Parts: sequence; structure tokens; C-alpha cells
Amino acid sequence: MANSTRAEKAGLPPGSLVHVGKLKKHIPKIYLIDYNKDKIEEKVVKNVEECFPFRKTSTVTWINIDGIHNSKIIGDLGKEFGFHPLLLEDIMNTEQRPKMDDFEDHIFITLKLLMYNNRHITTEKISIIIGTNFVISFQEHEGDIFDPIIKRIRENRGKTRKMGPDYLAYSLLDAVVDHYFVVLERLGEKIEDLEEESITNPHPETIRALHQLKREMISLRRYIWPLRDVISGILRSGSKLIKKTTLIYLRDVYDHTVQVMDSIETFRDILSGMMDVYLSNISNKMNEIMKVLTIIGTIFFPLTLVTGIYGMNFDVMPELRWKYGYFIVLGFMALVAGFMLYYFRKRNWI
Amino acid sequence: MANSTRAEKAGLPPGSLVHVGKLKKHIPKIYLIDYNKDKIEEKVVKNVEECFPFRKTSTVTWINIDGIHNSKIIGDLGKEFGFHPLLLEDIMNTEQRPKMDDFEDHIFITLKLLMYNNRHITTEKISIIIGTNFVISFQEHEGDIFDPIIKRIRENRGKTRKMGPDYLAYSLLDAVVDHYFVVLERLGEKIEDLEEESITNPHPETIRALHQLKREMISLRRYIWPLRDVISGILRSGSKLIKKTTLIYLRDVYDHTVQVMDSIETFRDILSGMMDVYLSNISNKMNEIMKVLTIIGTIFFPLTLVTGIYGMNFDVMPELRWKYGYFIVLGFMALVAGFMLYYFRKRNWI
Amino acid sequence: MANSTRAEKAGLPPGSLVHVGKLKKHIPKIYLIDYNKDKIEEKVVKNVEECFPFRKTSTVTWINIDGIHNSKIIGDLGKEFGFHPLLLEDIMNTEQRPKMDDFEDHIFITLKLLMYNNRHITTEKISIIIGTNFVISFQEHEGDIFDPIIKRIRENRGKTRKMGPDYLAYSLLDAVVDHYFVVLERLGEKIEDLEEESITNPHPETIRALHQLKREMISLRRYIWPLRDVISGILRSGSKLIKKTTLIYLRDVYDHTVQVMDSIETFRDILSGMMDVYLSNISNKMNEIMKVLTIIGTIFFPLTLVTGIYGMNFDVMPELRWKYGYFIVLGFMALVAGFMLYYFRKRNWI
Amino acid sequence: MANSTRAEKAGLPPGSLVHVGKLKKHIPKIYLIDYNKDKIEEKVVKNVEECFPFRKTSTVTWINIDGIHNSKIIGDLGKEFGFHPLLLEDIMNTEQRPKMDDFEDHIFITLKLLMYNNRHITTEKISIIIGTNFVISFQEHEGDIFDPIIKRIRENRGKTRKMGPDYLAYSLLDAVVDHYFVVLERLGEKIEDLEEESITNPHPETIRALHQLKREMISLRRYIWPLRDVISGILRSGSKLIKKTTLIYLRDVYDHTVQVMDSIETFRDILSGMMDVYLSNISNKMNEIMKVLTIIGTIFFPLTLVTGIYGMNFDVMPELRWKYGYFIVLGFMALVAGFMLYYFRKRNWI
Amino acid sequence: MANSTRAEKAGLPPGSLVHVGKLKKHIPKIYLIDYNKDKIEEKVVKNVEECFPFRKTSTVTWINIDGIHNSKIIGDLGKEFGFHPLLLEDIMNTEQRPKMDDFEDHIFITLKLLMYNNRHITTEKISIIIGTNFVISFQEHEGDIFDPIIKRIRENRGKTRKMGPDYLAYSLLDAVVDHYFVVLERLGEKIEDLEEESITNPHPETIRALHQLKREMISLRRYIWPLRDVISGILRSGSKLIKKTTLIYLRDVYDHTVQVMDSIETFRDILSGMMDVYLSNISNKMNEIMKVLTIIGTIFFPLTLVTGIYGMNFDVMPELRWKYGYFIVLGFMALVAGFMLYYFRKRNWI
Repeated sequence: MANSTRAEKAGLPPGSLVHVGKLKKHIPKIYLIDYNKDKIEEKVVKNVEECFPFRKTSTVTWINIDGIHNSKIIGDLGKEFGFHPLLLEDIMNTEQRPKMDDFEDHIFITLKLLMYNNRHITTEKISIIIGTNFVISFQEHEGDIFDPIIKRIRENRGKTRKMGPDYLAYSLLDAVVDHYFVVLERLGEKIEDLEEESITNPHPETIRALHQLKREMISLRRYIWPLRDVISGILRSGSKLIKKTTLIYLRDVYDHTVQVMDSIETFRDILSGMMDVYLSNISNKMNEIMKVLTIIGTIFFPLTLVTGIYGMNFDVMPELRWKYGYFIVLGFMALVAGFMLYYFRKRNWI
Repeated sequence: MANSTRAEKAGLPPGSLVHVGKLKKHIPKIYLIDYNKDKIEEKVVKNVEECFPFRKTSTVTWINIDGIHNSKIIGDLGKEFGFHPLLLEDIMNTEQRPKMDDFEDHIFITLKLLMYNNRHITTEKISIIIGTNFVISFQEHEGDIFDPIIKRIRENRGKTRKMGPDYLAYSLLDAVVDHYFVVLERLGEKIEDLEEESITNPHPETIRALHQLKREMISLRRYIWPLRDVISGILRSGSKLIKKTTLIYLRDVYDHTVQVMDSIETFRDILSGMMDVYLSNISNKMNEIMKVLTIIGTIFFPLTLVTGIYGMNFDVMPELRWKYGYFIVLGFMALVAGFMLYYFRKRNWI
Repeated sequence: MANSTRAEKAGLPPGSLVHVGKLKKHIPKIYLIDYNKDKIEEKVVKNVEECFPFRKTSTVTWINIDGIHNSKIIGDLGKEFGFHPLLLEDIMNTEQRPKMDDFEDHIFITLKLLMYNNRHITTEKISIIIGTNFVISFQEHEGDIFDPIIKRIRENRGKTRKMGPDYLAYSLLDAVVDHYFVVLERLGEKIEDLEEESITNPHPETIRALHQLKREMISLRRYIWPLRDVISGILRSGSKLIKKTTLIYLRDVYDHTVQVMDSIETFRDILSGMMDVYLSNISNKMNEIMKVLTIIGTIFFPLTLVTGIYGMNFDVMPELRWKYGYFIVLGFMALVAGFMLYYFRKRNWI
Repeated sequence: MANSTRAEKAGLPPGSLVHVGKLKKHIPKIYLIDYNKDKIEEKVVKNVEECFPFRKTSTVTWINIDGIHNSKIIGDLGKEFGFHPLLLEDIMNTEQRPKMDDFEDHIFITLKLLMYNNRHITTEKISIIIGTNFVISFQEHEGDIFDPIIKRIRENRGKTRKMGPDYLAYSLLDAVVDHYFVVLERLGEKIEDLEEESITNPHPETIRALHQLKREMISLRRYIWPLRDVISGILRSGSKLIKKTTLIYLRDVYDHTVQVMDSIETFRDILSGMMDVYLSNISNKMNEIMKVLTIIGTIFFPLTLVTGIYGMNFDVMPELRWKYGYFIVLGFMALVAGFMLYYFRKRNWI
Repeated sequence: MANSTRAEKAGLPPGSLVHVGKLKKHIPKIYLIDYNKDKIEEKVVKNVEECFPFRKTSTVTWINIDGIHNSKIIGDLGKEFGFHPLLLEDIMNTEQRPKMDDFEDHIFITLKLLMYNNRHITTEKISIIIGTNFVISFQEHEGDIFDPIIKRIRENRGKTRKMGPDYLAYSLLDAVVDHYFVVLERLGEKIEDLEEESITNPHPETIRALHQLKREMISLRRYIWPLRDVISGILRSGSKLIKKTTLIYLRDVYDHTVQVMDSIETFRDILSGMMDVYLSNISNKMNEIMKVLTIIGTIFFPLTLVTGIYGMNFDVMPELRWKYGYFIVLGFMALVAGFMLYYFRKRNWI
């Protein structure tokens, strides 16, 4: 079976629940955690319907779903919580760019999680819905990125248990953005390796690696630029769902996003500079080669001419009869070669 | 007969109904569909006048006209519906850039449909007029792009039958924008092919293909950048013709347009990078060739000099008399060549 | 007599009526047309004073002056109509960039007319003053650009006779902007020719033509970018002189200006791309030449060495005594050459 | 004594009166002119204190000080007029970028005067303080740039005598900005010379001149971009010190500044284009040289091989015995050379 | 022990006090100065608790802490003064970009101090907290940058003693920004050296130095661009903590920041230009080398051919028998060489 792409959706009615992205087969894992200051309940559920009763309680309910390719689960959830069909469509579309939609009684956020595996960046789509007393999060794969948050809730460390769903959603966002720094650090190391290489020992592979890195930067930008608008959108939305005490934390995430963007732009500038350095190094190498050729030619052409002259068969060639003619000519040739070398040395060619 | 261009209109009074674009001769096909929640009427009409009675009914009337080169039809329609002459002029001008005009009792939208045929992008001008109880759409050619929508209306699937003309207009816009993803996907494949080629086997044809792709990107930008303003213009217009429930759908189309723009910018960045890779590959090839030439020269010049020396005709040349002189010289030459090869290998030139 | 330049005005008091531009000597032609719905009066006047009586009538009075180098005419007109000295200064300064000034009881607009003659763009300064019941227009040279408008007024075609001076001014603006499309079309053809040339047969002349076109694009931008601000300035001014029915027409001119700017940006992008193609084609040609040189060298160097060896004069050189030595050597040389050619063919060098 | 630079001020308390710039020793010249519609008084004063009595009169008092390196004069003046220490600091700092500060009862403006001497641009710092009935201007050196204004006041030409200090300040600004056009014209000529040179006869000096011009453009930008903000700052300040009738004149200066900026951007674009032309011309020259080398090699290598063959010393070489062998071979060589030349001509290499 | 990086914080709860940056071990030095117009008290304290009593007095209390790697001190201080955990986290994170946060009863500012040591730029993180009657500043290392301010307070010079904590904070900001000018001046000198070098004597080291400088510019931008927003943020915050008399001083710092940014952009432009000059110089050098090779080849190839011809062994070669044949040929060869040289001189190749 092939992957489904965005283009295949052309012609379908709006709000069609079709998974766009690499085909996946695993059964989505649904994890539920329900807590307030005093008590906590955790369970892994089979059917999404098991989560619905928690909706009525005043506690904070967090439903985390690992897998967005099952339109049944997404559809059922949407019906129960009254989500707009377009929101559900966005959850299932892995090619959707980061965005934020304020539906008054819930806020929908979608963004990209970046990971660095085997010297390559992989991305995963994360969606978060914030309601009055619930947070629902969607991940493409099973992952451990939210584990530290679960642990903090379970052990009642940090402020999460004392705060509402907006603080939980902030924690999720913060976890995703924190991962960007990990990826950036790896990329920074890769760039430094390549920079060393392109200065000291440039070879055709270098340019490919540079191009590859540039492409990765282009993708990164594509994921992170809209994220800034997403978070500033939440900050400016004035939604009742986000409490004032949480806003300062969201502003912190916003600052981190801007810092990530800064780093990406810096990396891009450095990569452009490295391309220049690489190309000028190639030019220099070419110059070196040309110089060698020119020096060789310039030394041997006159010498060869001399041997040619005394290889001619004229009847009358007085020098040929001289007793030391041969040695004189050899000496003369050595002299010429010596002078050439001296001249090149003086012009700094050797 | 030649095509008419925008320049030929210079000097004509404003609002002149002149078709700008490739000459076309087919008779425009007028298709009418009139529906509400309960009933539906479809017909293909000969004269545009046959559509006018439907204007008075409270049902939604959609008139789709395939062909914008007939000033008679456009003019009659304009008179009946009271459209501004400049609006009619814009419908007939295929070089008009995407725009949106709010005439209080109707909204005029014009945009470009992109299609990908035979590895080339073709464009078609689409115009949509939204009124209180009608939608009129204009296509340059007969096409099947709106067929899925007609089918959904006919079979009463989706929400179209329950909603007003604004939702219908949205569906048309959505269909056009969805087609952009199809085109982008093809372009993405083409770019990847070319990228492979420009890294592994660059040849002069590659640069032409790159240039061709770049030009296509430039045109795409030209069609899609203004489209964003068109849709955000509708969103912000506050027109009574667009109901609040439809706005969320239009915002979705807006998001798609932004995503298309993102992809185009990404493609442009990648293409620039490929140009660099291509050029540096050509430089590398040149270096390779120069190296071969230099190595050849450096090895053969000294050897030829040696043969030249012993080809001289001096009376006194002791070596020539030696019994093994010839073999010694041959050996010496082999030694020189061997040392050269060793030296080049050491300098990593071979 | 030399031309006067902007720099020569440094030191003069503000509002000095000095013509800036190429020296001209022709006597300015003053053409007057006075009309309303019912009647029309046309005449060519000698002295600008003859126009003044028409000022008091309620009809629309259009004074068109071909020639802006006569400070007497401009000054008299300014005194009669109460124009600000800086306005008059701007009329006479051909280097003034497009601008718009709202003096409450009249609006001053100045812009550039572009024409395409002998494969070169020429520009002409146009100024338009809109009053309550008059329009005064200034052209640098005698020209026929406004003739279609005069004809339409005379024959009472179009809407001009029924509308006020604002519509007349719009018609003038529209005529000027329409001419831009003519120029763009010629440039577009020139670019396509050059594109063909730079791909199939690049030569040093190509780069000069490219550079020339780029310069023309730079000038075009300079004239047209400010024009957009001029027209949007009129649209937003809220002046009583511009009626609401005329605004929609001005918005149309605004759209055209944006479209012209779009085209210029597209052309600029294409020209940059062509420069890349040209340069990479030159590199490819160089590669071709280097390849030929290297192949020639690589084939002939070993052969020449062989002849050199058997041209040596050693007493003992057994091969020289062989009966078929000469033919064996010739055969060996042919073999070497053949192998070389085969090798180059295999490496795709030939 | 060395020049003092901006960096040396680090560590000093804010508002320290330290001259930043090239060391100067001349005694500042203080020139005073006091006028209204009816009377005028001019004098050159020794001590700045002599100017203070004029402060109380209702006439317009203009104090022009040539020399800003004397902290005593600046300090005394500041104390008398109640200027802020930071304002005085800015006057003495020649590296201060153009700025405008509105201190309610006086406006402080600082900008750069550009002059073109000996094919190089020199700059001078100008500061202007506008008060209710005075204008104080500061120049770095003695100069004649304000002479025409003094003359106009003295001879009561123009409007200056009838207007207030704001109009005088405008006249000073206008004089400075008018000088920019002089500089731009010189630069334009220099660019055209260089353009001609880089197309017809590019040599290494060209690139240096190009680089030098580019640097000058970069500095110009630095001086003129902030000036636009300065003037628009005055326009928007709504200060009571600037009368409404003067605003239209300031708007004119603003337009001129924008035009200067336009020219600089145009020049920058042209210079970039020239760099491309220059580089491609160098590439073309290289191609020419390579072609010559290749043609020479290709013609002489085979001929030399032929002579090598018949220079071999084999016992049996039948051709050597032929009567016309020598002439046949010479003819054959001529034939080969002729064919080569014909082939190159056909491939358009010669 | 390794340094801790930003990435290692991923997974920690928000507000965790973890030092991000190079590992440091020195014991933070806490310096306290408490003053008003009349009295002053200075001391170096061991424990941060010793500072707390001063908090209650109405005098201005300045606590300067050299060292931000000790979470105990930062934490205690935060608890006493009621600082937000995120604020404390930002103080300890040396990779935090410059930012400003307004917490109503205190303002938090963080920025970078630049220093120039051993031809390299080093950075240090500075944080400043402004309260109603206190200023707390944090430095990464022990440094003397604030010494002139301490001295001015001690000796009651300048205005600091008479003003509040806002003026003190301004003095600290001013000291940091003033240091930027020192760094810029050093960079300017370095650029000028390199410019000279890249024009007169470009070698591969030049490109590395250029690249290095470019990278430093990129980092500088990263530190200084956000600083502008920081200071304009304070200016626009309308906080009661900043008195109106201090605003004018802050505006001065803002102007300096803009001037620093200007210089950086100028340097970047100059560096780009130098890269072009460098590359074109390399091309020119290559041209020179190719010319020499071509000239050598063109002169010696024909001469060698002549010697080859008369080295052939044909029985019948009349010229060989001529008495002066040898000398005629030598003369002919000299002639050919002379003509070649003359031709090259004429084509301006030599």
C-alpha cells in the first residue's frame, strides 16, 4: 500500500477524515490521566468512549492519543466533544503547517515535533486541544516526549497539579519546543564539522553535505516560523481558557521559539558563507594545478627546443663539431632551467 | 487570427468588453443548477436569458459558464444582474491578476486554476460572483474541475444543499486551491529528479531544466501571492453575503493558500541551492580535467626532453657510445615516470 | 546650450521656476476643451490668458499644455489658479519622482509616461491638476497619447461627458498606465529573444544586452513603485474632488499599477536567472575546450615520446636494426592512440 | 595628537562634552544675524556671550557656529539656552547618525552635509536647533554652504525675512539636501565611466574602483536613510515651533530625501550588475585565451608527431628513400594544418 | 566536568534553576552599595542575606553579583524579592537572547556584554533588575566594566547620586552599550587590514579570515538586534519605575544601539564586497597564469616544429645541403619568435 498525499484529497468534500502521510498500521494507544490538586487517576483505555465519563468531572482530564491514522477514533472523539469537522481533518493531515484556531470553548493547536536520529531530522505532528477542563493531545507515533510531564503529575512535582488545563497544555508545548534545542545543538555540531572540512580539505562530498544541511534548514524554517505566529496568536487571543498566570509561561515559550528561529537564521547565514569558502577553495586548488602545469611547461619547452635544434641534420652546423659542444649545451640547458626556477621563486609561484 | 494582448486595449474606453488572451472559438457552454434543501433543477441552456427567471426564486442558483471570450453573453448577463462594466472587463481579461471586489450586493472574485499537463503547468482563469441567492462562475475552457461539487449537490452529499451561495462559492474556491497541491506534488517530484541529476550527473541540459523550473516557480508565485490577499480580503470584508458559519471554511482555504505559498518558497530555496551545487560540480569536473592534463604533461615533458637530448647530433656525446647506453636511458626514463606517479599519488592527485 | 540638471538648482530659493531636464526650444502648445453633457467647445490658444475666462463657467474645462520648459506660462497659470510655488516647481522638474499632493481645492499628480521607441524606453513627465471644475495637464513633448480621450469627448462616446473633472483625470491616468502594458509587452519579447540566445548561443554581446535590460528594469521600478503610492494616496485622501463613482475606476487603475509592478518583478527574477544560465553556459564551453586540449595532449604526448626514443642516436639500439621495426612501432603507436580514444569514449569525454 | 574616537568615550559619564572626530584646531567662527521683516543686523562675534542679548528680542536670531570641537563655547551656549547635556554631547560627536529630538521649547536636528572633492565624498556634521525666535546652526568646518541663504536674507529676496525661525531652519535643511543632488550627479558620472570601462576594457583596477564606489554607496545610505526618519519625525511631531505654512516646504524636503534614497538604491543595483558584467567579461577573456592555447596545441601536436616519426633512425623506413618523400610529408603537414584551421573556423572557434 | 548546554534542560520542569553555559567554579562575589544624595555605604558581602536589610530603606540599593552559576544565591535572592521562577531561570541561562520583562513592581533586563580580547570577541551575560528602590545586576565573570560608575557614585560626580534606581540602571546599560563601540572599532580596523590584503595580496588565508569575520558579524547581530527591542520596550512600557527625566537618557542609549546596528550592517555589506573582490582577484591571477602558459606554448610550438622538420632523415632534403641553411633556419626561428612577441604586445597580453 502506498502513502496518501495531500494531492489525493483534491475533490473530496471539506471536512473529510482522510489520513495524509506515511501509511501506518499500529493500533493507536489511548492514554488517560485525570487529576486535581488532591487526587489522580491514570489508565490506558482500549476504546475512546471510556474517556467520555471523565469529561463531566471538574478535574483536569488529559487524553493522549498516539496515532492519528484511525478516522474512527478521531471521528468519535470529535462527535462527543463537538469539534468542528475541519479541526478533525487538520489532526489527521500530517502535512498541515503549524496553526492555532480559537473555537471559543476550546483552542486547537497543531505543531511539529523535531527529533534527530542517525544524523537526520525526523518530524512528527503534534496536535493539542485545550478545553475548559480537558486537554487532548495527538501524536503521530508512540513516543516518550511527554513522559517527564506524566511523571511530574504523578509525583506531584512542579506546579502542574495545582494549575488548570492551560498550564498542562503549556507544559506540552514547552516539551516540544525544548526538543528543538536538542536538534539545533546536533545541527550546530554537524555544521562545525563541515566548516572545518570545507576549509581544510574540501572535496565534492562536502558540497553535497552542505546542500543537504541547507535543505534541512529550509524545512526547519518551514516548521518553526509559523509556530511563532501560533504562540503569539494564543497570547493575543484573549481567550478565557488561558489564565493570566499561564500567560507568562507561554511568553517564555514564545521567547524560546524566537531563539530557535534566531539560531536557524544564523545557521543559514553560516552555511551560505561556507559555500563561498568552499568555492573559493576549489578555485585556489585549480590555481595551484594551473601553476604547476605552467611551470612545467615553461621550463621544459625551451629545453626541448634546444635539443630539437641540435637534432637537426644540416650539413653545416659548427657547434656539432666542437669538442665540448654537447657539454656546453647541457650546461646551458641547466642554466636556463635554473634561471626559470629562480624567476618563479621570485614571483612567488613556487 | 492572432491572440489579443493586454497592450492592444490601450486607448479603449474603460469598461470595454474585449477578450484578452489566446483566441478561442468554441461556443461557451452555459450550465445552470438551481437547488435548495428539498429540490434541485439542472439544465444546460443555450441562451443566457434562460437563466434569468431563476434569479427571482429564493433557491440557490448556480450558473457556470465555460468560455469567457464571448462579449455578448458576458454583456447580457452584466446588464440583467447589474454588474459594473469594470467587473465584466475583468472577467474577459485572462491576464488579470487574482483579485476580489466587494460590490455590496455581490462579491467578485477572480483567480487562477493551475493544471499540470505533459510536464508543464497550464493556467486557466476562473471568476466567481457571489450574490444573495446566486453564484455565477466563469471558466476559460470546458473542464471537469467542478464536477465533484455538482455530483455532491445532485446526490445531496456534504453540506452544500443545506447552505447558501457563500458555501457553494467556498466549495469552488476550495476545489481550485486543492488543485494547487496536485501541481505542487508533480513539481516536487520533478525537483527531486533534477536534484539527483545535478548531484550525480550534471550536464548542460540540467541547467536548462533548472531555469525552466525556476521560471515556473516565478509564475506560480505571481498567481498565488495575490490569492492570499483575495481570501483574506473576503474574510475581513464583513460582507453580509458571507455567513459566519462559512467564514471558518474560508479560513481553512486561507490556510491552504499559505501552505501552498510556503511550498513554493521552499522550492525556490531548494532550486537556488541546486544551482550552486550544479556550478560547483562543473568546477569540480574542470578541476579533474585540468589535473589529468597536468599529470600527463608533467610526466611526458621530462621524458621527451631526455629523448631530445640523445637525439642531438654532436660529434662527441660519450653516452651514445656506451654499450648499454640505450637501456640505461630507457631505465632512467621509467624511473622518472615511476617517481612522478608516486609523487602524484602522495599528493592525492590520482 | 547645455541641459540643466537637478544639481544646478542647489542654492536657489525654494519655489524657483527653473526647468530641469533636456533643453527644449519648441513653443508650448496650449489646447483647451470645455464641455458638459450638452455642449462642447475646443480651441488651441496662443496665450494661456485666453483660458482664464472658462474658469468661471460651471462646465468642465480641460487645459492641456505640451511643453513644461516655459516658466512664463507656468507662472501665469499658477498665479491665476492660486497654485503653490512648490507645485509649479515640481511641474517644471522632469526628474521629480511620481507624487501626489492634496491642496484641498485642487489635487496635484505627477507621473511618468513610458514609451518604447527603437528598442529603447523613453520617458516623459506628465502632471495633472484636478480642480472643482477644471483639469490641467502638462506633457513634456507634443504627443498623441490623450488623442483617444479627446475623440471620445468630442464624439460623446463613453461616460466622460456625463462625469466631472475627476473622471477626466482618471481617464488621463488610465491612458498613461495602459501605455505601460505596451512597453512591458515589448520588453517581454526582448527578454524571450535574449533567453533563447543565452541558452543556445551565448556570446559576450548577450551579457551586455542582459545588463542593459536589467538597467531598464531598475529605471522602470523607479517610476512605477511610487506611482502605486500616488494612486492609493488619491484613493485614501477622502478629497471632495473625487466622487465615489470615480473611486471604483481609480481602484481599477491601482490594480493595473500593481499588475505592472508584478510583471517588472517577474522580469527581474527571470533576468537574474538568465545571468546564471549564461555564466554556467560559459563554464560549460570552457569545460568543452579544456577537454579537447586534454584529449589532444593525452593522445599525442606518448606518441611523440615514442618517436623521440627511436630518434635517439645510441650506437646500440637493437630495435632500429629489425627489419619491421619501423612498422611495428607505427602499429604500436596506432594501438596506443586507439586505446586512448576508446578510454575517453568510455569515460564519456568524447 | 591623535583623533578621538567614539570608543574613547566609553566609561565617561553621560552628557560629557567630548569632541569625537578628527582633531581640529581652528578657532570656531561665530556668525550672528538678527532680522525681521523690517530690519536686519549682522555681525561676527568673538565670544558666544555677545549673542545672548539677542535672545530676548522678538526678531529671528540666527547664530551659525563653524567649529564644534570647542567644549567651552558649546557648554556656555547650552547653559544660556537651557539645552540638555545629551543634546550638547550630540553636537560635538561627529559620528552621531542623523537624528531629531523634540524638546518641546526647541527642536534639535543633526544631519550630514555631503561634498564631493577630488573624486571623493567628504562629509561634515551639521546640527540645527530651532527655538521660538532663534535658530542655532553648527558646522564642522568653515564653509560657504549657507552663503546663498545669508545673501537672500540680507537682500530680502525670497520669503525668509517674512517668515519665522522654522522657515529659516527649513532653508538650511533644504540647502544641505540640495547638495546631495550635486554629489549624486558626480557619482552618476563616475558610475557611467566605470560601466563603459567594465564592458569594453575590464582590468583589475576596475574591480577596485567598483569596490570603492560600492563602499561610498554604503556610507551614503547610512547618512541618508535616517534623514528620512528625521524629517518625517519633524512633520509628524505636531510641534508648535513648526507653522503649518512651513510644513508644505518640509514635505518638499522629505520628497527630495526620498528621491536621493531612490537614486542611491538604483546606483547600488547598477553597481551589482556591473560586478556581474565584469566577472563574466573576465570569464570570456579566459575562454579566449584557452581557445588560442587549444588551437595552437591541436595544430602543432600532430605536425610535431609527423616530424618525430621521420626523425626516427630505423634502418628500414621506405618513405625516407622516396625522392619526393620530404615534399610529400611537408605537403601532408600543410594539409593537416589547413584542415584543422578549416574545422575550427567551422566550429566558430576562430 | 563538561559544560551544560541548553539542550540538557529539555525535560526539566519550567523555572528549574540550572546554569546553562561554560562550567565555572569561582565563588560569586557580591558587592553592595547603598546611597542617596547625602550618604553612601559600600560593602562586599559573603552571604546574599546580608543585603536584605537594605531593601527596606528608602535609599537606592545596588547589589552587583559576579557569577550566575550558583543556584543557591539566585534562589535565595528570588525568594526574598519575590521574583518569578522564569526570571531566575533566565538569569542563569547564558544562552538566553537579550530580552526585557515588565513585572509591574520590577523590570527585568538581560543583554550581552561584548569584549575584544586577543583579536577575538568574547561575550558575557549581564542581567539587570530595576525595583522601586533597588537595582540588582548580575555578571558572568568578575569584571571592571561597572567600576567607573561605582567611582562616580563614590565621588558623587555626575547625576547618579541625585537620581533614582532607574538612572543607575540606565548607567549600567549605557556602560554595556558603550563597550560595543570599542569592539566595533577593533573590528573596523581588522576589516580595513583585510581589505588592503584582499586587494593587494590575496591568498587562501584571506578567505578564512573573511569567513571568520563574517561569522563574528552574524553573532554580533544576534546579540544586538534584540537589544533594540529591549530598550524600545522599556521606553514604551510606561512603567512607573522609569521616571520621565530618565526616559531621555534611555532614548540616547536606544540611539546608540541603532548606531551600532548600522555599523554592523555596514560591515556586513563591506565584507560581502570584499569576498567579491577577493574572488575576482583570484580569477585575475588565474588569467595571468593562463596567459603566460599560452604565450610560452604559442612561441615554442612552432619553433619546435621547425627543428623537428629539419631533424627528419629523408634522403632528399635540399635545405640540409645549403651552406647557410642552419643559420637561415635559426634566423627564421628568431623572426617567428620576435613576431609572436610583437603580436602579443600589440594585443596587450604581455
